[in-house]
Amino acid sequence: MIDMILVQIFVLISLAMLAAIICNLIKVPSVVGEILVGIAISNLAIGGVTLYSAMQLGDPNSTEVFSVLSELGIIFLLFTAGLITPFHELKKVGGTAVLAAIGGVAVSISLVYFAMMAFGFTTMQSIFLGVALGSTSVGIAARAMEQLGVMGTMEARVIISAGIIDDVIGLILLAIISGTAGGGEINILDTAIVGILAVAFVLVSMYICTLISKFRRTDVCKIALSKPRKQSLLSPLPFALIICFGLSAMATYLSLAAIIGAFLAGMMFAEFRDIWPSEEKFNSLKEFLVPFFFLFIGINVSLSAFGTGNAWLIAPVLVVLALAGKIIGGGLGARKLGSRSALIVGSGLTPRGEVTIIVAAMGLEVGVLTAGQYGALVAVVIVIAVIAPFLISWAFKRKDKFRNAKSMKFKE
Amino acid sequence: MIDMILVQIFVLISLAMLAAIICNLIKVPSVVGEILVGIAISNLAIGGVTLYSAMQLGDPNSTEVFSVLSELGIIFLLFTAGLITPFHELKKVGGTAVLAAIGGVAVSISLVYFAMMAFGFTTMQSIFLGVALGSTSVGIAARAMEQLGVMGTMEARVIISAGIIDDVIGLILLAIISGTAGGGEINILDTAIVGILAVAFVLVSMYICTLISKFRRTDVCKIALSKPRKQSLLSPLPFALIICFGLSAMATYLSLAAIIGAFLAGMMFAEFRDIWPSEEKFNSLKEFLVPFFFLFIGINVSLSAFGTGNAWLIAPVLVVLALAGKIIGGGLGARKLGSRSALIVGSGLTPRGEVTIIVAAMGLEVGVLTAGQYGALVAVVIVIAVIAPFLISWAFKRKDKFRNAKSMKFKE
Repeated sequence: MIDMILVQIFVLISLAMLAAIICNLIKVPSVVGEILVGIAISNLAIGGVTLYSAMQLGDPNSTEVFSVLSELGIIFLLFTAGLITPFHELKKVGGTAVLAAIGGVAVSISLVYFAMMAFGFTTMQSIFLGVALGSTSVGIAARAMEQLGVMGTMEARVIISAGIIDDVIGLILLAIISGTAGGGEINILDTAIVGILAVAFVLVSMYICTLISKFRRTDVCKIALSKPRKQSLLSPLPFALIICFGLSAMATYLSLAAIIGAFLAGMMFAEFRDIWPSEEKFNSLKEFLVPFFFLFIGINVSLSAFGTGNAWLIAPVLVVLALAGKIIGGGLGARKLGSRSALIVGSGLTPRGEVTIIVAAMGLEVGVLTAGQYGALVAVVIVIAVIAPFLISWAFKRKDKFRNAKSMKFKE
Repeated sequence: MIDMILVQIFVLISLAMLAAIICNLIKVPSVVGEILVGIAISNLAIGGVTLYSAMQLGDPNSTEVFSVLSELGIIFLLFTAGLITPFHELKKVGGTAVLAAIGGVAVSISLVYFAMMAFGFTTMQSIFLGVALGSTSVGIAARAMEQLGVMGTMEARVIISAGIIDDVIGLILLAIISGTAGGGEINILDTAIVGILAVAFVLVSMYICTLISKFRRTDVCKIALSKPRKQSLLSPLPFALIICFGLSAMATYLSLAAIIGAFLAGMMFAEFRDIWPSEEKFNSLKEFLVPFFFLFIGINVSLSAFGTGNAWLIAPVLVVLALAGKIIGGGLGARKLGSRSALIVGSGLTPRGEVTIIVAAMGLEVGVLTAGQYGALVAVVIVIAVIAPFLISWAFKRKDKFRNAKSMKFKE
């Protein structure tokens, strides 16, 4: 059993590294390569055999193991994103992040809803398609920004915070439409409880961050930290892992994404960056685990499924609307930062992920969406996953170029 | 599914850290605490419910996931042990390691065999018990030495190399007795092929290490490495992971333990320690994954199983013989290093592990061993896992004390 897993890990990380090298050569974010390699693994058949079946990746044990490794990868990715986001700096961008999140969700849902109604779909279908494409997947954006080396910028902070707020909104919308889709009344009380708990979790975590942030600035703490410790009882790294998994587990328990807990956990440690585990310490965990997440986004795509029905023809339209929704809505929300930064924020919010897939699967299950519409949503996730890193990279470079141009002028 | 795994990971790493803190306070290697916590998790029932069942660790998916995480932990532990073992330094101790390995295996098997014959067991039973206790488990020794901070010492190198040679010997013996136990003739050809392939794998890997070691010393390499690289195409960390998993998978394919491949892979990178991934880079991977290995050594112990039959009364005898076998045999093999270092080597070889469990399970399956004898062997593994770290720590300190005493005399 384990022998097989070792071979699978070997092949997968080899392919991921090959993809990363090629992406590096042609100057493309490596997450694109990882997703494309994933798609090739499960869809490219040589002599009728895909690498997926040759490696027995469909074995239930392998599926379970890699779904856990993928999840761990994305948890560590967001945890380290949190590690470089001290609360007192996040506070500065908090208002903008809320506006960007609300703008992005509202415009995306509206655009998709009206366009789909115009296409002649039912109201329910249009609502499902809209909600499915409402929420951002912060993982892809985080990975792309990490590789661009811009994770510590103000724009990256807005994007990640907005992505998290986004997820809370997405969760509440999900609760509402799942009540609607069940055919029954919307259970306002249940929905309200789910929503309140999720919001409370985020707010309480944030409040703890404030307390930590304040405590860090007190003299008591400064003196205690400045003392040389002979042997620390509390090794920071395992302690950080415990907090990370504690909050991640709690987040999933409240139906939020685990990565939200991971990010908040990271933020709690951000105040102690200088003496406690910094993001580099987690490099080996990330480098090992993160590629699995993106490989399996690709591996889980079945290109042949897109053939069902012809409604998947709406996919290109949905891609355009989903991109436009976030760039316009998110950008408008962040317009305070200036047009160049607002474009970065809008672009950073374009990736879609888990929420889209979950809503799509639910819609298919309850019979609201057709197989074609489901396939279209999956296609949108993939296409945007490939496009978004370029978009983000381009938006950041555009701003840099402008700044360089300005500073050159200044020199003259 | 993943929610449950996150909770399990959270609880397990929290308990492992608690164990580590307590061990640190009472100055005990933390591997002891991890194993004992593991035993408590699956055997200590509060109100009739163990933590094991409360956490649903018995769920097949969890079992599979944690067996993989454990295996990954031990792979990274041995990989990093290899990273600080450059081949040209290993060569110096190679002869001693071979003698220590052969001495330890031979004396252990002989002691156990004759004692068990004297106890009135059958020849076959005595052989099985002997072979089961012949081979060292290098993981426990490595963890204990790592925490003592002595991983780079000459003795540690001898212990790990001898442990690996040990494993190759164990594999060949396993092939022989499994042929015998099957009731049929021993298939000399098959056994020979298995043995030759295993030896060839180790030798070829070693030879590659020599080549790398030589190459590293050439001017071409020195110049190439001294050039500042703008952006490295080949990020060393994923590359190291690929080699690590490639050799681990190959080792299991040749029926060797995966960790042998991991150690050899680490050795290949040891020559480039200064510029390529050093062992600290893998800290987060290790700190996260290694505790699972030792927790599950404990979790897999069923104390109630020891009640079956009364042959488990031989367990104390086996513990003494197993310890004596390695201390005497391994120590004699390493006597060239001086008595204090020889004692360290002998102590370092005392841990037993996978080989013991595998031979015990096989013996039970083919009906050679009784359930009581099987339980006794498992008990020996656990008891030595708890004793060995103390023994290793004591032996190292004994040598230090002697050295300090000498240097103090010298000062006077």
